[in-house]
Amino acid sequence: MVSFADVKAAYERIRRASIQTPIMTSLTANRLTNCSIFFKCENFQRIGAFKFRGAYNAISQLTEKEQQRGVITHSSGNHAQAVALAAKMLGIKATIVMPENSSPVKIAATRDYDAAIEFCTPNMEMRERTVKRLIKKHGFILIHPYDDSRVIAGAGTAAFELISEVGAIDMMLAPIGGGGLISGTAIATKGLCPKAMVYAIEPQGADDAYRSFKSGKIVPSENPNTIADGLRTSLSKLTFSIIQQKVDEIITVTEEEILDAMRFLWERMKLVIEPSGAVPLAGLLKIKENIDNQRIGIILSGGNVDLSKFFEEYKSTLSTNSNN
Amino acid sequence: MVSFADVKAAYERIRRASIQTPIMTSLTANRLTNCSIFFKCENFQRIGAFKFRGAYNAISQLTEKEQQRGVITHSSGNHAQAVALAAKMLGIKATIVMPENSSPVKIAATRDYDAAIEFCTPNMEMRERTVKRLIKKHGFILIHPYDDSRVIAGAGTAAFELISEVGAIDMMLAPIGGGGLISGTAIATKGLCPKAMVYAIEPQGADDAYRSFKSGKIVPSENPNTIADGLRTSLSKLTFSIIQQKVDEIITVTEEEILDAMRFLWERMKLVIEPSGAVPLAGLLKIKENIDNQRIGIILSGGNVDLSKFFEEYKSTLSTNSNN
Repeated sequence: MVSFADVKAAYERIRRASIQTPIMTSLTANRLTNCSIFFKCENFQRIGAFKFRGAYNAISQLTEKEQQRGVITHSSGNHAQAVALAAKMLGIKATIVMPENSSPVKIAATRDYDAAIEFCTPNMEMRERTVKRLIKKHGFILIHPYDDSRVIAGAGTAAFELISEVGAIDMMLAPIGGGGLISGTAIATKGLCPKAMVYAIEPQGADDAYRSFKSGKIVPSENPNTIADGLRTSLSKLTFSIIQQKVDEIITVTEEEILDAMRFLWERMKLVIEPSGAVPLAGLLKIKENIDNQRIGIILSGGNVDLSKFFEEYKSTLSTNSNN
Repeated sequence: MVSFADVKAAYERIRRASIQTPIMTSLTANRLTNCSIFFKCENFQRIGAFKFRGAYNAISQLTEKEQQRGVITHSSGNHAQAVALAAKMLGIKATIVMPENSSPVKIAATRDYDAAIEFCTPNMEMRERTVKRLIKKHGFILIHPYDDSRVIAGAGTAAFELISEVGAIDMMLAPIGGGGLISGTAIATKGLCPKAMVYAIEPQGADDAYRSFKSGKIVPSENPNTIADGLRTSLSKLTFSIIQQKVDEIITVTEEEILDAMRFLWERMKLVIEPSGAVPLAGLLKIKENIDNQRIGIILSGGNVDLSKFFEEYKSTLSTNSNN
C-alpha cells in the first residue's frame, strides 16, 4: 500500500525539481455549479503533465547502483517524457520504448531530453516484451507508469499542493486510466480532509475502471475508444486495491461531454488542456444538479495536445485573410 | 499627458475589481533567447484581455451625474466586453455599438454583461456616427478604447504589476494598435525602471504606428491586413505623443512570425493567447540574436480566440476515432 506519509515524503523529494503549479478559479464555472472550484493546473507542470511528479519521485529514490544501471519505460505519451526529463535532471540514463508509429513531435520531445529510444511494433504485448528483453540484456530499472508505489505517491503531490494552498475541500475529482493519479489523489485528499469525497471520472468508451469498481474485480481495458488518450490503460492490482479503499465513486462521461469541458477550459479559462485533463470537469458538470455550495478540487492532469493541424490550417488562411 | 502617478492611482482604483494575473516563465523561451522572460498573462484577466483595466479605471472615475447618464463605446472586440462588464460591476448602464456582422459569440458575450447593443453598418465611419447620434440623443459618456488618459493609465497597470512582482527589468514589450496599451506600459515601465527599453511590436500588415514613429507624424491605418485583429486601429494624437516620448523602438513582424509565436505559447506554455497577444513574443524572437542576458517583460494582452471551428472539427472526428 501507499500511505499519506509517502505522499508527504514525495512532496519534499520533488518540490525543488517540480513546478508548484498555479491553481485557477473561474467565476463562470462557480456559477454553473453553485460551488467553489479550484483547478490544479498540471498542464503547467514540467513536460506539460502531472506525470513528472511520479517519475521524479521514483527515480530519485533509486540506489546508486540502480541509478548506474539506468531506467526504462514504455510509453507513447506523457510518462515517456516524464521519465526522460527526470532521469536527465538526475544524471541517469533513460531508455524509452516507443511504438514505431509514434508522432514525430513526441519522438523529438523525448529525444530532446537525451533519452535513448527503442522502437517496437505498436501494440501492448510488443511494448512489454521489448522492455523485458532490454531489462534482461542491460539491467535497466523499470519505471512503470502507474503500477509503482513511488509513482503513485508522486502523483498524489498535486492534490496535496492543492489542498495545502486553498484549505479544506469537500470533494476532489481526477481522471482515471491506469489508476495512478486517482490513487495518489485519493490518498492525499483523505489524508488532509478525511471527510472529503473522491470522485474518479472515466470516459464511457474506456470504462474498465468503472466496471471493475462495480463488479469488485479487475476488468481489463479492451478496445478502448476515446479521445482521452491518456486513459485507455487497465488498472493494476495495486491501483485497484487503493481505489476500492479510497475512491467514493466512479462516473463515466461521453466523448461529447469531454469535448464540451475541454472547450470550456480553452475558451473561458484560456487553458490548453488535453482531452484526458478535461475529463474530471466533464464529470463535475454531469452531476452539477446534485451538488451545492461545495468546495471542489479538480486535477487538470495535462495539456499536451498536438496542435500541428490547427496551426497549419490557421496558416493556410493567411493569404485569404481579409481586413476588418 | 498621462503620468506615472496616474498609473499608480489606477492600480489602487482597479486592484480589487480586476485580477492580479499570474506571471509565467518558460525555460524553453529563456533558452531560446538566453534571457529571463516574464510573461504577464492578461488572457486570464476579466473578459480575457487587459482591456478591463482601462475600462474600469475610466468608468469608476465618472461623477455621479455622468454615471447616471450611462456609458457608450463602439467595438466588435475586447473593449466592448470590458466596458460592458466594468459598467455592470459599477451599476451603470452601458450601450455598445457593434457592427451588424459581429460574431454571435461576441454579441452573446456582450449581452451576458447586460449591455444594450446597437447594431450599425460594419465600417468605422458608421460606428462613430452611430455613437455620436446616441450620445446626442441620450447623453451617454463615451469610453474610447484608447484615446482616453484614464484608459491608458488603466492599461499601464499590467506592466506596473509585472515589475512590482518580479523586480527591475531591462526591457518591456507590448503590442501596438491604437497605442493605449503600449502608452500605459511605457509610462509604468519608465516610472519604475527609467533605464529599461520599451519596445512596441506591430504586425507588418498594419504598420501605421511604425510609419508614424519613423516619419514623426501620424499615418492612419488604411486597409490593415493581419490576423491580429486587435491591432488594426490608428494612433490618436494622445497615444502618439506618449509613444514619441516613451517608446524606444517599434518592430514589425510578419503573419507567419505571429502564428509561430502563438503556437509556441499554446503548445509549449499551454496558454490560449489571441494573435494580437502573441505579437510581442514574435518581436522578441525576431531580435533574439541582438540581446543577451536581459530581464524581459512581455504583456500577453489577451486570449479571446474563436474556437468554434476547431472544436467542431474535433467533434466531427469522434465517430471515426480509432483505438490506440
